Amino acid sequence: MADFDLVIRQGTVVTAASKMKCDVGIADGQIVALGRNLGEGRQEIDATDLLVLPGGVEAHCHIEQRSAFGLMTADDFESATISAAFGGNTTVIPFAAQHKGDSLREVVKDYHARASSKSVIDYGYHLIVSDPRPEVLGQELPALIRDGFTSFKVYMTYEMLRLDDRQMLDVLYTARSEGALVMVHAENHEMIRWLTDKLVDANRVEPKFHAISHSRTAESEATHRAIMLSRLVDTPMLIVHVSTEEATAEIRRAQSEGFKIYGETCPQYLFLTAEDLDRHGMEGAKFCCSPPPRDASAQEAIWRGIQNGTFQVVSSDHAPYSYDEHGKLYAGPNPPFTKIANGVPGIELRLPLLFSEGVGKGRIDIHKFVEVTSTNAARLYGLFPRKGTIAIGADADLALWDVNCEREVRYADLHDRAGYSPYEGKQLKGWPVTVINRGRVVVSDGELHVGKGSGQFLPRETSEFATPTGRLQPELDPDRNFGVEILSRAE
Amino acid sequence: MADFDLVIRQGTVVTAASKMKCDVGIADGQIVALGRNLGEGRQEIDATDLLVLPGGVEAHCHIEQRSAFGLMTADDFESATISAAFGGNTTVIPFAAQHKGDSLREVVKDYHARASSKSVIDYGYHLIVSDPRPEVLGQELPALIRDGFTSFKVYMTYEMLRLDDRQMLDVLYTARSEGALVMVHAENHEMIRWLTDKLVDANRVEPKFHAISHSRTAESEATHRAIMLSRLVDTPMLIVHVSTEEATAEIRRAQSEGFKIYGETCPQYLFLTAEDLDRHGMEGAKFCCSPPPRDASAQEAIWRGIQNGTFQVVSSDHAPYSYDEHGKLYAGPNPPFTKIANGVPGIELRLPLLFSEGVGKGRIDIHKFVEVTSTNAARLYGLFPRKGTIAIGADADLALWDVNCEREVRYADLHDRAGYSPYEGKQLKGWPVTVINRGRVVVSDGELHVGKGSGQFLPRETSEFATPTGRLQPELDPDRNFGVEILSRAE
Amino acid sequence: MADFDLVIRQGTVVTAASKMKCDVGIADGQIVALGRNLGEGRQEIDATDLLVLPGGVEAHCHIEQRSAFGLMTADDFESATISAAFGGNTTVIPFAAQHKGDSLREVVKDYHARASSKSVIDYGYHLIVSDPRPEVLGQELPALIRDGFTSFKVYMTYEMLRLDDRQMLDVLYTARSEGALVMVHAENHEMIRWLTDKLVDANRVEPKFHAISHSRTAESEATHRAIMLSRLVDTPMLIVHVSTEEATAEIRRAQSEGFKIYGETCPQYLFLTAEDLDRHGMEGAKFCCSPPPRDASAQEAIWRGIQNGTFQVVSSDHAPYSYDEHGKLYAGPNPPFTKIANGVPGIELRLPLLFSEGVGKGRIDIHKFVEVTSTNAARLYGLFPRKGTIAIGADADLALWDVNCEREVRYADLHDRAGYSPYEGKQLKGWPVTVINRGRVVVSDGELHVGKGSGQFLPRETSEFATPTGRLQPELDPDRNFGVEILSRAE
Amino acid sequence: MADFDLVIRQGTVVTAASKMKCDVGIADGQIVALGRNLGEGRQEIDATDLLVLPGGVEAHCHIEQRSAFGLMTADDFESATISAAFGGNTTVIPFAAQHKGDSLREVVKDYHARASSKSVIDYGYHLIVSDPRPEVLGQELPALIRDGFTSFKVYMTYEMLRLDDRQMLDVLYTARSEGALVMVHAENHEMIRWLTDKLVDANRVEPKFHAISHSRTAESEATHRAIMLSRLVDTPMLIVHVSTEEATAEIRRAQSEGFKIYGETCPQYLFLTAEDLDRHGMEGAKFCCSPPPRDASAQEAIWRGIQNGTFQVVSSDHAPYSYDEHGKLYAGPNPPFTKIANGVPGIELRLPLLFSEGVGKGRIDIHKFVEVTSTNAARLYGLFPRKGTIAIGADADLALWDVNCEREVRYADLHDRAGYSPYEGKQLKGWPVTVINRGRVVVSDGELHVGKGSGQFLPRETSEFATPTGRLQPELDPDRNFGVEILSRAE
Repeated sequence: MADFDLVIRQGTVVTAASKMKCDVGIADGQIVALGRNLGEGRQEIDATDLLVLPGGVEAHCHIEQRSAFGLMTADDFESATISAAFGGNTTVIPFAAQHKGDSLREVVKDYHARASSKSVIDYGYHLIVSDPRPEVLGQELPALIRDGFTSFKVYMTYEMLRLDDRQMLDVLYTARSEGALVMVHAENHEMIRWLTDKLVDANRVEPKFHAISHSRTAESEATHRAIMLSRLVDTPMLIVHVSTEEATAEIRRAQSEGFKIYGETCPQYLFLTAEDLDRHGMEGAKFCCSPPPRDASAQEAIWRGIQNGTFQVVSSDHAPYSYDEHGKLYAGPNPPFTKIANGVPGIELRLPLLFSEGVGKGRIDIHKFVEVTSTNAARLYGLFPRKGTIAIGADADLALWDVNCEREVRYADLHDRAGYSPYEGKQLKGWPVTVINRGRVVVSDGELHVGKGSGQFLPRETSEFATPTGRLQPELDPDRNFGVEILSRAE
Repeated sequence: MADFDLVIRQGTVVTAASKMKCDVGIADGQIVALGRNLGEGRQEIDATDLLVLPGGVEAHCHIEQRSAFGLMTADDFESATISAAFGGNTTVIPFAAQHKGDSLREVVKDYHARASSKSVIDYGYHLIVSDPRPEVLGQELPALIRDGFTSFKVYMTYEMLRLDDRQMLDVLYTARSEGALVMVHAENHEMIRWLTDKLVDANRVEPKFHAISHSRTAESEATHRAIMLSRLVDTPMLIVHVSTEEATAEIRRAQSEGFKIYGETCPQYLFLTAEDLDRHGMEGAKFCCSPPPRDASAQEAIWRGIQNGTFQVVSSDHAPYSYDEHGKLYAGPNPPFTKIANGVPGIELRLPLLFSEGVGKGRIDIHKFVEVTSTNAARLYGLFPRKGTIAIGADADLALWDVNCEREVRYADLHDRAGYSPYEGKQLKGWPVTVINRGRVVVSDGELHVGKGSGQFLPRETSEFATPTGRLQPELDPDRNFGVEILSRAE
Repeated sequence: MADFDLVIRQGTVVTAASKMKCDVGIADGQIVALGRNLGEGRQEIDATDLLVLPGGVEAHCHIEQRSAFGLMTADDFESATISAAFGGNTTVIPFAAQHKGDSLREVVKDYHARASSKSVIDYGYHLIVSDPRPEVLGQELPALIRDGFTSFKVYMTYEMLRLDDRQMLDVLYTARSEGALVMVHAENHEMIRWLTDKLVDANRVEPKFHAISHSRTAESEATHRAIMLSRLVDTPMLIVHVSTEEATAEIRRAQSEGFKIYGETCPQYLFLTAEDLDRHGMEGAKFCCSPPPRDASAQEAIWRGIQNGTFQVVSSDHAPYSYDEHGKLYAGPNPPFTKIANGVPGIELRLPLLFSEGVGKGRIDIHKFVEVTSTNAARLYGLFPRKGTIAIGADADLALWDVNCEREVRYADLHDRAGYSPYEGKQLKGWPVTVINRGRVVVSDGELHVGKGSGQFLPRETSEFATPTGRLQPELDPDRNFGVEILSRAE
Repeated sequence: MADFDLVIRQGTVVTAASKMKCDVGIADGQIVALGRNLGEGRQEIDATDLLVLPGGVEAHCHIEQRSAFGLMTADDFESATISAAFGGNTTVIPFAAQHKGDSLREVVKDYHARASSKSVIDYGYHLIVSDPRPEVLGQELPALIRDGFTSFKVYMTYEMLRLDDRQMLDVLYTARSEGALVMVHAENHEMIRWLTDKLVDANRVEPKFHAISHSRTAESEATHRAIMLSRLVDTPMLIVHVSTEEATAEIRRAQSEGFKIYGETCPQYLFLTAEDLDRHGMEGAKFCCSPPPRDASAQEAIWRGIQNGTFQVVSSDHAPYSYDEHGKLYAGPNPPFTKIANGVPGIELRLPLLFSEGVGKGRIDIHKFVEVTSTNAARLYGLFPRKGTIAIGADADLALWDVNCEREVRYADLHDRAGYSPYEGKQLKGWPVTVINRGRVVVSDGELHVGKGSGQFLPRETSEFATPTGRLQPELDPDRNFGVEILSRAE
């Protein structure tokens, strides 16, 4: 009788803090043994010359999400999770998005119904809170947090989603009480609208003007404001998809001062620029996302932020829209930039891009790669140590990488349904070749080996990253002021 | 026949950049001669042992201003300008305050009717723009700017006054086109409201909680946001009544980067603290103003900001409310902090306080004193070189100071109608003894010598301080981006 | 026959990036298996309810080191390594200190002779380079680096040790060529001397004046200068034993700008203050070290620097001198501060102090604890992945911690020979109870179980942390300037 | 009988804080009247359409100065002061330079002997202290300060001149006691030497390599260090000839924190770049100075520093060497950059350059121009209010400017003896046409009207800018520490 369900032999196993040549023994979906010359597995995989990394935790992606005005992402839970898996991921945490008037609980049920029957890898949801009315903040949200939806995202822009500062404070205050992690899309809505109106009035409506309307000033302003809101109520916060040097600097400034402000960035801010929005005809529409890609100098700043720890996570912000009337061009073949569906696909290339350009070119080491693509996401979102590392008792979520495999990006080779890749033609070295989720070989030899619905839902713990600092502004600190306790202290 | 209407003999004449022992010859309301042994004057004043300084330009004060809900400041144009004059000022620029729905033009007419019949020294008005509807921004405001109302103030807080970011941008854009200077009250409205509601819910309503609700975080956030709005449209801006180290740092940061952001502070942030709001009973109400006084460390930072040029002007923000049912306590004898009239008197003491504690104690020199209390105000607001300095052809606006005169502040000696002084009992050395406006001796020997209505209205030029920098954010800069010109360039 | 030499059962194994409940199987001094229900071990240890951590890597300590004027540290390699082991460490990297005129090679031989016969745990040496004459830099140092002495320390102060800026550049340049890591003691020598002379002239010679002479300005100046020297030649650098907020800020500023500047701090800057030097009589001498402990606000800043990643390592800087004529008081019973032996003991308490006050009080999590006390030291100094983590193939260097054990620090319980502890009386919760080095149980049940000389010498690899950034100052960058290549580019 | 010796009619008189259309009446070398329709002057000048500005105070220039190895500047006191006068200056403060071993008193006598017989405008000397041996610091320097030599310069680089940090502290301490202002040439000597040796070893010796050897890192390091030395002993300091953004930022940082650090820059950092050193053949030698000109981005930063008040003064640092074997090429026709005489001429063009490019192009206003070229120099160096402004009782030092005069710079039109101008060919608009010193028309109609030796020596007061801040580092502050007073407090 075999000792293990599966044994990975002779790989170079790497975590955010270890590197070892060994076998990995898997049983019942978990890693149960690390060692040399492990006993027999019912299934065995030779990983000689391969890296064995924790499966990627893709913690920022939009899957089967309907926008406020009804537009659907190109990927459903099936295609998105397949694409993620081929890209070396074993967990996705997309959003369950509330629209105004929605019951959060119903929203979650709805997403769950779809995800549970389609996902091929494990998944959870962040909530999107767009309507923090009293019953939502008072009952639904706390209950959902306790049920394992321990993180949620709020928007400072988008007409139908955005919260004003007061709502932000209410939401942060609830997060603080429940230990949830708040993710923030930080752009100043009114700056963007004002610029947009000026551009539209002047009939400047080609895709490139999207990049101009979403000014970097709008991003750095909102980032600073979000941080100040966070500081006021001493609630940790993650600023997502940071694209500019200025916003990076605001986050780092807060970290320097000891505040729990976290940062996320995405491949589009490392590998694309606003120039891409200026491609011929409507091609630029393919690159429209918010915030938009910036320029070479911003890219450098973002790399620096990954290197020096300003950013804890690199996510894809996969938001796939087909380049046709069902997606990008929903408003016609030649829409103004204000009516182009917003978002870029990227769930399958996040890891190969970062590996090839980051690890391969010496910008980051392999441990940092694991940290920002897997371990930290698991820690931020309450999945650690079950996910995010390679350890006894952890889920057997592994990606085997061939660091010498060199391939050009071709959309035809990808598995999402966006219909194009913004990175088409890019030469990348280092690709995941086998991907294992809870011991199940999901991908190998370029084939999918599991059925839809085989992924598992992940209720999540609250995160230690979400614990308040205990540092209050002097006015609010009973030790330093008139004895007032507005905020209940964190334990 | 006399050579001059008035000669000031043998004083030590000081401007922001000169010091000279000489006579000052005045005719037709102007300074026409500086020299030694000037010819005879119809009137002569011996200034031996006195400093002869430019009259103070008090550019931030609320006079005979009715609040949105009908409360009137304690001073009308008569008492306020008398008090100002006794305090060494020869010009005041109070506000003509628009409420929602008002025609700006009508507002100005209304203030003018009152001011013109009562003022004892020269005056102009800043506009307060609280309702920037299209016809206001499109017609009234540009026309008024051209008529000499070249500066206006906007609020980021107060329910009835505040503009949102979009309105701010519209207003800044108009200012840019017309060369007007925008003054900003920078506090985050929703932070304040959120804290206030929390405090009120907990029945923490004594005056001291006013200081807590107006968190320094609210001030520094809004200051940063205002600066970013200013930067987006490249329109210079003055942040008024800065009270915190953090907001000071934001202003200085912008100045370091080359943006035209100006700063103003007030005596209440140099000489009072939040502890004053915690005085016995309702006494604290006397010190309620917004932003509130902070603490000793903030005071030091504010002094530093004056010394190193972060602040261009020190104004009084005189906002006098009597300590009774007509003012501070309009809502009853024991109101919650949310219903205490907001503001402190100080038009008469601004200069003596700053002189005694600043010049007298070696914190600033006499030239800096003149600069921040008179010259820069004149320059910022388009009155220079007619006002703000001592020069041939300038208005004969002079204050003769006895630097050895030492006196305790007593409300009984003051001339405003607030009924109290926040600085009661403070020992000050150095007082203005004779004050001259356009050659008219307004004050001497502790007496007023001119009649109400004798002050003159001052239409104002646009200010060179309000010229755009020409530095646009990269997205908006046609030289660095896709050729888009959203903003018309400044000439 | 047993499967393993040793099995640790059922502990909670923690690395910088993993947490797992499992057994650890050890053979031939290495970890060979991690799993549940591992086979039999010749020896077994029950670790239920214990943490199993990587053994501490103590990378900054002075052992059996003779000063330039002949004073010897209280500990030799036997007592120091025993003390280290009892404190949870399995590796020490003390210094092999060159004095002027010495051959580096001879110095290493000399230390080696002593260490090899006495150490009870593994060890390597950093070199101290105090005499970088041509043959030292040209031959000895490169050869030693290639022999596994891949890091060295230089001093900016101390008459007999310090290098001037030019020597620093020479040394950095050699380090760059060879991939060695440079550690810097950063204090401005002449500031210290100048202050010292002023103090001595005024007969202010009690121990507390040591803290005054070593001004924090001297530290932050030298830290900045060291960083600029590092930047000029693009050679990574570690600033050791940082004690002030200002120096921390300089390091962080460099990191923010993308430079490879690393930081180390020590328990004395977290738990002592300058007040300790002002204890009764000569007691203060026990706390004299350089830089000296500062104040509570500096302590907070240092904690923040650990939390936000400014510091990569926390070391002891163990420099033990007995409190008698053989150590601290070598110059007599009542010496001036200039003649007190400089240094504090702490090799045994580094980990318990940081665990109890850091992990125990929620300032850092257990992964960060492992990272800064073990993993990063191993990585910085070329011992990773052999040391610094718990992984298959790594040395079986483990410390088993009882997190509930609460004990007061008493020198009588410690194993060094300093004769006192600066932390006497401090209550700590969480202590290592069993310490294993290469599979050998070094310490358990409060007893030492290995003989002197049983530790192993560790030649070290060059560190990836020491790779140049490739970012040159514009003047030196052939891509941006006149084609000059002064520095050979790093590969 | 005439009322005045001289009357300037109808000019636009401008000071740093005033603008007025008036006549200026002069008698006995002083301004005695400002007014309209002044009485008759023995001499009269029509200034209609001209600006009447305070004469420039050129406070950084090297005149008839012999270097340590014997090289003489091209200008003696005659040619230099004539050139200065033609450039709109009425006062020069060159250096009396001590070489090692020199008696400061003798040095001053020596310079005085030459200056007094040759200067055509007023003059004083800063001392250069290169040998601060005890009798110099203890006796000579204090005595000279009291005799009116109230400022001195020290060097952090140049083999024969530089002080080490300890000497800097001694010198600052003396300055503090006597109220003298310390000027610092801040470049890291050893960085420069190290780079120089590397360059020379590689036979990279063309002039352009001078710019590379004097790395901007060397400048910003030394600037920071100088500031820290200043802070340690709380002695104000002026950093001269700042050329980089980084050094500007260090100065501004200190000012932001409330320290009395002043900054000076020069036209060469606004109008030249390192590219100029790369001109054909040895032409680049003409542009060799230290620090060297940098690049366009540095120029922008320097302009910003003038605009926002980081720099108090703009001086020429006139250091003229003929482009032949007596000057630049003293070491032969084709010398390595290490043997090119260091310095650029510019005493005649400082004001026209700054006027044309600064005032003319809207970068600064006319008041700022007067402030940084005249008023602040007078204030910094103890000549105010006698010099630096236009006021009754002040010396009649005036420059009449024709703002419409447009002329190309041609060396043939200049009056120094350098033999070339670095600004040759530059088109400038706005030139001084008449220059008056103590009522004497020195220059008019392109002619010199006074004889050599007619300038007057100016003993100087100590400057209020040199008063300590009273802010001591915590270690040295008796209020915050162990009662130690190392520094005597400033009064």
